[in-house]
Amino acid sequence: MPEENIVYIGSKPVMNYVLAVVTQMNSGVSEVVLKARGRAITRAVDVAEIVKNRFIPGMGVENIDICTEEIVGNSGVSTNVSTIEIQLKKDK
Amino acid sequence: MPEENIVYIGSKPVMNYVLAVVTQMNSGVSEVVLKARGRAITRAVDVAEIVKNRFIPGMGVENIDICTEEIVGNSGVSTNVSTIEIQLKKDK
Repeated sequence: MPEENIVYIGSKPVMNYVLAVVTQMNSGVSEVVLKARGRAITRAVDVAEIVKNRFIPGMGVENIDICTEEIVGNSGVSTNVSTIEIQLKKDK
Repeated sequence: MPEENIVYIGSKPVMNYVLAVVTQMNSGVSEVVLKARGRAITRAVDVAEIVKNRFIPGMGVENIDICTEEIVGNSGVSTNVSTIEIQLKKDK
């Protein structure tokens, strides 16, 4: 099995990430992991749903994990931010 | 087992929903489902993480589902919106 393929979801338009996932899947990879935190979580869910419904029907959500990360800002104050990992898998 | 306890996550402050979940859990319910769509998805993840880390350590995320809903606006144009369901469960 190849190394885990990770797509980090940021603040770009949803379709950029959809394209990244579809490209990876079409290159022969059967598993892609979407990672996002904070407000990008919603976008990660959108990416998973769009790829599944419109581009790769044989793909499904294998697993979803949520977690908390502590971020220390410039002023030394730490904030907690939620993260999500969505594991996508394509049927062979 | 009692009926499924659902907390719908909207645009109110996160702590309102955290309180709703904690109250339900303390009333003897062992399972609560968080439902959210669109931008509230991030907030739902925050609620789950805050309850787990700060209020009910014995609670865990049992399952997470994502889905798409079609919404028809006033002008008759339909849009797709992502939804999430986070199932929280407390150890007995």
